[in-house]
Amino acid sequence: MNMSAKPLLPASIGVFDSGVGGLTVLHQLQKRLPQENFVYLGDTARLPYGDKSGDTIIRYSLENAAFLMEKNVKMIVVACNTASSYALEPLQQALGVPVIGVIEPGAEQAVRVSEHGRIGVLGTKATINSGAYQKAILRRNSRANVFQVACPLFVPLVEERYTEHPAARLIVQEYLKPLKAQHVDTVLLGCTHYPLLKDLIIEEMGLGVEIVDSGASCAEKIKIVLKEWNLQAANDAIGSHSYFVSDDPLKFQAIGQQFLGMAIDKVELISFFSGKATR
Amino acid sequence: MNMSAKPLLPASIGVFDSGVGGLTVLHQLQKRLPQENFVYLGDTARLPYGDKSGDTIIRYSLENAAFLMEKNVKMIVVACNTASSYALEPLQQALGVPVIGVIEPGAEQAVRVSEHGRIGVLGTKATINSGAYQKAILRRNSRANVFQVACPLFVPLVEERYTEHPAARLIVQEYLKPLKAQHVDTVLLGCTHYPLLKDLIIEEMGLGVEIVDSGASCAEKIKIVLKEWNLQAANDAIGSHSYFVSDDPLKFQAIGQQFLGMAIDKVELISFFSGKATR
Repeated sequence: MNMSAKPLLPASIGVFDSGVGGLTVLHQLQKRLPQENFVYLGDTARLPYGDKSGDTIIRYSLENAAFLMEKNVKMIVVACNTASSYALEPLQQALGVPVIGVIEPGAEQAVRVSEHGRIGVLGTKATINSGAYQKAILRRNSRANVFQVACPLFVPLVEERYTEHPAARLIVQEYLKPLKAQHVDTVLLGCTHYPLLKDLIIEEMGLGVEIVDSGASCAEKIKIVLKEWNLQAANDAIGSHSYFVSDDPLKFQAIGQQFLGMAIDKVELISFFSGKATR
Repeated sequence: MNMSAKPLLPASIGVFDSGVGGLTVLHQLQKRLPQENFVYLGDTARLPYGDKSGDTIIRYSLENAAFLMEKNVKMIVVACNTASSYALEPLQQALGVPVIGVIEPGAEQAVRVSEHGRIGVLGTKATINSGAYQKAILRRNSRANVFQVACPLFVPLVEERYTEHPAARLIVQEYLKPLKAQHVDTVLLGCTHYPLLKDLIIEEMGLGVEIVDSGASCAEKIKIVLKEWNLQAANDAIGSHSYFVSDDPLKFQAIGQQFLGMAIDKVELISFFSGKATR
């Protein structure tokens, strides 16, 4: 593939996630790259990924990417932190287009803003068990102290819109205890849903602590990569957006708008059979 | 099929659920039927079912049952309330063995114990949206008043062992508010995980309220059906138990013991490809 040549056809950026969460990443992308076309796939029939095994996460990720590859994508964004933790290398080996995940950009930003290198990482069980963020941070600053906490109740709290409920504060307090005890100066939000708990997390950690949203860092990185590799859409283009899910398009449409911060017009249903997506 | 003849080979009872929750039903079955062989399948690669669409739940249920049918089962128990709500009829039409779900036995027991017919039903979103419990209760007592509440945060709270945490009490209080306001005399636990929150639910509802566990009611029903249809194992038999999952056998083994109330020796991994399970 000749990276310096513009693609002949208007190509899209493929984004996948286990469900609606990746829409927070898409929101960050659309803000920075309004001229780009985006194809989003939410694997809602098999979500969540955060409690599943590495092998299963890799298999699902390869199936998601195979579907997006049929949509003439010039790049694939793994918006899901759990999928980024396990499947980035297998995807990069399998696909003929650049694949960008959220781990490296998030780690980079955390190292950049952390004053004393005391960094807390919040994520799903699978993300935390993979150690992906910890490794990515230590590669950039071998003297950093990384404190990881799995927060499996955050996703359901966000999806049930319980972020304002007193129970959410108690659970946030519980999960943040070890990070407060370790006096971290930076907290990395290592899951697409966690930005919706950002205010509570700031209140609990105190204003002096930096909060890094790996989705925003990822979007920033993609803007740079597109330019470097000469893959940008024309400046005067108006980007299109299409949405696919493996279960319940109406539910995705209803809940998704909260994550995307704008209306979603149309969502198409696909099915995964024999490892290949069909419509 | 000749229901009055004993099967020629020692046959098993197949039980499936989306994950570990159905082990609370298996626990009730084993207590009553120690001489029976059980084959349990937890579809952990695709759980939870409670947030998914009816179509997807039916497809997954048929795939689970097809796997169990290859294991020489004389009966299939749908331990998952969500799967029972949507897939019981499709399963009964597709399979050549009796299929028993948890809805009808749970509804029967609730109608039996309810003094004034004011019955609260707790379940997943999908179970509540199906209206399956409500219909089953009204078929037995058309003058009953049924109040349904979806409790999507209960499963994660139980799976994360947060049942003793103050946040669990706040969430239980929130979900039970409408049932208390309606002065229900009976609460039906319409999800395999909810028996693990039973103490909290009793404390909140008060001692005068009957609590019905649909899993226990289902096990009672199966004991009767086996006898009626002459499908019982020999009285002096010692039952065997085998466990299959579609993801992460070790995790299932570790968490499962809490639900089953006894040790799980061995769990085998299967994969669903092209709608058919393979090992």
